[in-house]
Amino acid sequence: MGSLEEERTTRGWAARDSSGILSPYTYNLRNTGPEDVYVKVLCCGVCHSDLHQIKNDLGMSNYPMVPGHEVVGEVVEVGSDVTKFRAGDVVGVGLLVGCCRNCNPCKTDNEQYCNKKIWSYNDTYTDGKTTQGGFAGALVADQKFVVKIPEGMVPEQAAPLLCAGVTVYSPLKHFGLNVSGLRGGILGLGGVGHMGVKIAKAMGHHVTVISSSDRKREEALEHIGADEFLVSTDGTKMQEAADSLDYIIDTVPVGHPLEPYLSLLKLDGKLILMGVINTPLQFVSPMVMLGRKKITGSFVGSMKETEEMLEFCKEKGLTSMIEVVKMDYINTAFERLEKNDVRYRFVVDVAGSNLIE
Amino acid sequence: MGSLEEERTTRGWAARDSSGILSPYTYNLRNTGPEDVYVKVLCCGVCHSDLHQIKNDLGMSNYPMVPGHEVVGEVVEVGSDVTKFRAGDVVGVGLLVGCCRNCNPCKTDNEQYCNKKIWSYNDTYTDGKTTQGGFAGALVADQKFVVKIPEGMVPEQAAPLLCAGVTVYSPLKHFGLNVSGLRGGILGLGGVGHMGVKIAKAMGHHVTVISSSDRKREEALEHIGADEFLVSTDGTKMQEAADSLDYIIDTVPVGHPLEPYLSLLKLDGKLILMGVINTPLQFVSPMVMLGRKKITGSFVGSMKETEEMLEFCKEKGLTSMIEVVKMDYINTAFERLEKNDVRYRFVVDVAGSNLIE
Repeated sequence: MGSLEEERTTRGWAARDSSGILSPYTYNLRNTGPEDVYVKVLCCGVCHSDLHQIKNDLGMSNYPMVPGHEVVGEVVEVGSDVTKFRAGDVVGVGLLVGCCRNCNPCKTDNEQYCNKKIWSYNDTYTDGKTTQGGFAGALVADQKFVVKIPEGMVPEQAAPLLCAGVTVYSPLKHFGLNVSGLRGGILGLGGVGHMGVKIAKAMGHHVTVISSSDRKREEALEHIGADEFLVSTDGTKMQEAADSLDYIIDTVPVGHPLEPYLSLLKLDGKLILMGVINTPLQFVSPMVMLGRKKITGSFVGSMKETEEMLEFCKEKGLTSMIEVVKMDYINTAFERLEKNDVRYRFVVDVAGSNLIE
Repeated sequence: MGSLEEERTTRGWAARDSSGILSPYTYNLRNTGPEDVYVKVLCCGVCHSDLHQIKNDLGMSNYPMVPGHEVVGEVVEVGSDVTKFRAGDVVGVGLLVGCCRNCNPCKTDNEQYCNKKIWSYNDTYTDGKTTQGGFAGALVADQKFVVKIPEGMVPEQAAPLLCAGVTVYSPLKHFGLNVSGLRGGILGLGGVGHMGVKIAKAMGHHVTVISSSDRKREEALEHIGADEFLVSTDGTKMQEAADSLDYIIDTVPVGHPLEPYLSLLKLDGKLILMGVINTPLQFVSPMVMLGRKKITGSFVGSMKETEEMLEFCKEKGLTSMIEVVKMDYINTAFERLEKNDVRYRFVVDVAGSNLIE
């Protein structure tokens, strides 16, 4: 057996600078503390926010950075106080790996809103070490931030649920929209949007996909299961659809006008923003006042909601639509993701990849 | 006795063009139909939106226009199907006098959001006549849009409740904020804002008035009853107050940045816009997402909420702070209102005024 240090070394693929190009990188993981779970990574989804991080779009990136926060893996070792998991379990780790546990959000199972939350990569853990993500051979995470993947779920299909899935499930649940009979809109049909259609349909909603062009009409209606497809540049159709939706999940990750979408909402309708957009969004106040509409947003989901969402997806037989690639394809995958050229989520088969070169 | 036409003639003060200057104007009212109430006006509050209307700020004004939508009067005659009122009752009429009664908002006691609502002035009634407001000797209104002023309430003090009062009561009630122990912010201390402080305090909230300068500190704390006063240009105090409020009622009627106020809100906090502002308001999406905050607004309140609010104010002994003036002071009152030079609402003693010259 090797030394402890050797045992806790892993290899990942890291961005080295804001070019965002990933290449092999070797680093140390912390030892398995009493609350920790040591996980061998099986696969990891590629999310649009990874792209922001590797390219320093938000101005907060530190390198080397191993991205990836839709991680499915197998438990190798658990700490002495870990009761939820044991070696061999298939588990997931998402966007967060720590929180303060004392603030109001933490005490109300809303730890994703803790001001001291720790991101699963590009952050500093309580031990002072840089956190690194899922495009790597292994990771160590506190059991609070680890979820069990329900039996029978394919790891590659479960991976996108850990961010994209819970990102749409959480607001639908929190805002009381998880009741059947509602009419929902999904604006933008990418990784989050396609899960939005599937989850909203499974909740019994009539779902309209709203898109800037007709390009994805057949896909949305025939393959993903939407009920209607509305092109946002078609003034007549937009006018006809005014006052018709209970909510819109707005997944567009770049600046866009809000008013056309506010006008689609019924009295008390909700426009739920999912995209981290650093250019200001605009609206005029009568558009929300005359209809008591809400502009809101949410940020992934709690660990409790993540567990619930996984059970919900299992029960409803929901799967994500993915393109599985190997680690050495990751830079091409990011290039294609930037052009929105993926239906609908890349997932890296980490365990089946050569991480060394 | 004169002819029917003579009986339904009244005198009001009307704006004739976008100068917004009011002068005496004689016009016909409709006869008292079966559902109608014929009301002799006692007094009428002066609201900031009257100013927008007389000056055609919204581009939708028709002249001659008799403004005024915080009307308290005495019932003179009721139609054959009117059961709620009888001659001699003191009643109120607010911003609306009609709705379709068939749409979803109408059927759910949210008639203020009906797309076919009829405004109490500068609109066309179902009989084709122009609606005219409360700066006049009399008006005729459908009983659905008439409320009883609770016994013992002074008409002049009741008038501002019919718009300013219900405008703050309605969202607090609707958004589930009418529970004690919350921390609320009132942004802007004008006609609506001062009622906001009083109503929120009566609901048992800890109330912070937020203002752009220190000028109204003493007034807010000593006379209106706010708990705290926060100057929005004081960066240190604003920082200290971050994440502290459950809601903010934003009464500012001109363009302003939203981010300083969004940052004051706790997780799930609500920024409730009350001001009709035609320049776009801006925010960046992470400001709402990372805290699941809501930007929303509401528009006066339903007739049911108006009745509830009047009972609430009576029970809690709430009154508005007003400056009573005669009709011939109205143009000066509008000038002063435009400069925010009133504490906090002008009310015209219509019955005690000479309306002829």
